[in-house]
Amino acid sequence: MQSMITEESCNTQLNKLIQELRRGTLVLAVLSQLKTPKYGYSLLNDLGEQGLEIDQGTLYPLLRRLEGDDLLESEWNVEGSRPRRYYKISPLGEKLLTALKDEWQALISNMDNILKSG
Amino acid sequence: MQSMITEESCNTQLNKLIQELRRGTLVLAVLSQLKTPKYGYSLLNDLGEQGLEIDQGTLYPLLRRLEGDDLLESEWNVEGSRPRRYYKISPLGEKLLTALKDEWQALISNMDNILKSG
Repeated sequence: MQSMITEESCNTQLNKLIQELRRGTLVLAVLSQLKTPKYGYSLLNDLGEQGLEIDQGTLYPLLRRLEGDDLLESEWNVEGSRPRRYYKISPLGEKLLTALKDEWQALISNMDNILKSG
Repeated sequence: MQSMITEESCNTQLNKLIQELRRGTLVLAVLSQLKTPKYGYSLLNDLGEQGLEIDQGTLYPLLRRLEGDDLLESEWNVEGSRPRRYYKISPLGEKLLTALKDEWQALISNMDNILKSG
């Protein structure tokens, strides 16, 4: 039993650390995709197709948080079969996106050095 | 005043998001550096030299947490001018490090696609 428990606890820890790794990139990914307006579910699909699986319970509150922080703007579109809230990046969001992209590249480069030296 | 407040709030948000981005890579960075035993302060310097600034108040609790999770092992070394606790990666930590490195590479590759398509 000992080794099964250890295996399970190892997987739990790995999943936790993977989530931690991904969480930081989520805002960057979301902001980068909203130069054209999208509604939540279409954004979710776009990210999923590119290998970033994210569930609605994470994405929708994040969109509201980013709008609350003035990084996104939203409006209702009632032309389709049902009304949908479309989000797009705000001017402040654009500024932040540029800075975050630079940080991301710097982080990749630092981590590259660190992993090579380890 | 309006624009100063906005500027300040933008910097605060940017710093928060940058911290979020870095936080996820911290465990990966720390585990990768502990194939040879190091004490906290020497690890802090090594990471700092490679562009990953981290303060003691973040690193020391992280080392204790990782030891508690059996990812690190530690022992006191009393040979120097004062006793120091040396940390090194455990066999479980090695397994996790390998998996985390793969995740990190996959994340870089996904984000690369996402940022290009955005």
